[in-house]
Amino acid sequence: MSRRGLFIRASSCSNGMMIVKLGGSVITRKDRYRSFRREVTRRLAGEIADSGERVMIVHGAGSFGHLLAAKHALHEGRRSEKQIPALARVMQDVRDLDMKVIKELADALLPAVSIPPAACARMKAGVLDTLDVRLFRDYIQLGAVPVTFGDVVLDDVKGFSICSGDQIIRMLAKEFAPKRVIFCADVDGVYTADPKSDQKAKLLRKVDSTYLRKLSRGTSYVDVTGGMHGKLSNMVEIAERGTEVLVINGLEKGRLRAALEGKEPVGTRVVGV
Amino acid sequence: MSRRGLFIRASSCSNGMMIVKLGGSVITRKDRYRSFRREVTRRLAGEIADSGERVMIVHGAGSFGHLLAAKHALHEGRRSEKQIPALARVMQDVRDLDMKVIKELADALLPAVSIPPAACARMKAGVLDTLDVRLFRDYIQLGAVPVTFGDVVLDDVKGFSICSGDQIIRMLAKEFAPKRVIFCADVDGVYTADPKSDQKAKLLRKVDSTYLRKLSRGTSYVDVTGGMHGKLSNMVEIAERGTEVLVINGLEKGRLRAALEGKEPVGTRVVGV
Repeated sequence: MSRRGLFIRASSCSNGMMIVKLGGSVITRKDRYRSFRREVTRRLAGEIADSGERVMIVHGAGSFGHLLAAKHALHEGRRSEKQIPALARVMQDVRDLDMKVIKELADALLPAVSIPPAACARMKAGVLDTLDVRLFRDYIQLGAVPVTFGDVVLDDVKGFSICSGDQIIRMLAKEFAPKRVIFCADVDGVYTADPKSDQKAKLLRKVDSTYLRKLSRGTSYVDVTGGMHGKLSNMVEIAERGTEVLVINGLEKGRLRAALEGKEPVGTRVVGV
Repeated sequence: MSRRGLFIRASSCSNGMMIVKLGGSVITRKDRYRSFRREVTRRLAGEIADSGERVMIVHGAGSFGHLLAAKHALHEGRRSEKQIPALARVMQDVRDLDMKVIKELADALLPAVSIPPAACARMKAGVLDTLDVRLFRDYIQLGAVPVTFGDVVLDDVKGFSICSGDQIIRMLAKEFAPKRVIFCADVDGVYTADPKSDQKAKLLRKVDSTYLRKLSRGTSYVDVTGGMHGKLSNMVEIAERGTEVLVINGLEKGRLRAALEGKEPVGTRVVGV
């Protein structure tokens, strides 16, 4: 075993652990307020359980978060007292979604433990600053499956801010050096253009930082939670530290399980250089 | 203003803030698994909103926590892997109860923000060791109503442990020096004996540490979450730091609002000496 291998084992409790992102567009219908995709989430929970792999789960807020958050400009931080009822409401909605996800995981016999970022993370000017990673480590060591999610989080500069699931994954991946991070999206992977609006969009089977540099921020397509450039940049950074990164379609049966088991389902592999 | 008065203001953001404990026996039927008292909780939420007072709310877990926790001996900490699904289940149940409470508070137009101890507290050998009080302060300063509850919490000695709402109140009261702490129970206050089983039990209108010393630990009556001696001792300690402490019946209409407004409803006043 290389010294680096030893170092990774000593500095984390990953031991082949994986992180699964359940995208907000997969577990909810993003354009319909508070619309949960129970059947999809149930199937994905089953695929995680069937794989037998040890995972941490991070889910998006989807239509339980983004619609109201955008309406009340919560991403801009505290601007008026009128936002506070909306802040409370969005937190309540997202927590409701989380409980629905937790229920499906529990029904699949996964001992899921919900860790809300609102109670263990801090942001600074919209960037995740601290996350109590010890919580995740300790719950994993107990044998539980930590579950966290995109949330409204206290911000030391802006009062509060929106913390995306992707920001959390970035920090967890840095801390735990997981074997693999699997992003479940509502499309087959990373495309050359938005596959929902551009028929010529082609699925990329592999993306690296070279491709990322070619992507102009201005022209790359943008999804609801931020630009594709930002998402990809995040994934490349994780991959460059030696973690396998996959983007797959969570709406297609069996792909998450295949990805967890190290098979190569349809999707995009993001690699470091 | 006395120097002590100045000190208290500088060291906290209480400014007349109060803590309300919604006992598990008030918001749930303690002997029926997961039985929520929605109407009672709704009325109490309304009384808090109508009082116009700024509060933090701590609720018990009642039958969403104690029954399964006792069955799987969760208060004893980690003893076997078989407990982990039960641990996850109890955390899920308690979080479900919390969302029900949050919903009633939100319906009463209180901007309630849930802060689960499982994500921001640590115990040591069954005693609450750390609680991220900054979270509570920051949410109050934003104008939100922090809500927390009895929960399963990581324990640095036992793996995990049960943290009662009363332990949390003790730490919050120490940190924030609230004007008043109001404990809502399912009886009128503190009695000379268990009023549910002893017809001769008399309501005490006032209790202090002298009375507490007379109470023998062995003979005092015990409720589900621990001995009355422990609960009273906790209350006396809070009172001795200059906070008004009241025990009232949360099942009786109007008493919580009266207590919040500084009137003297039927109940027990706990005083420092």
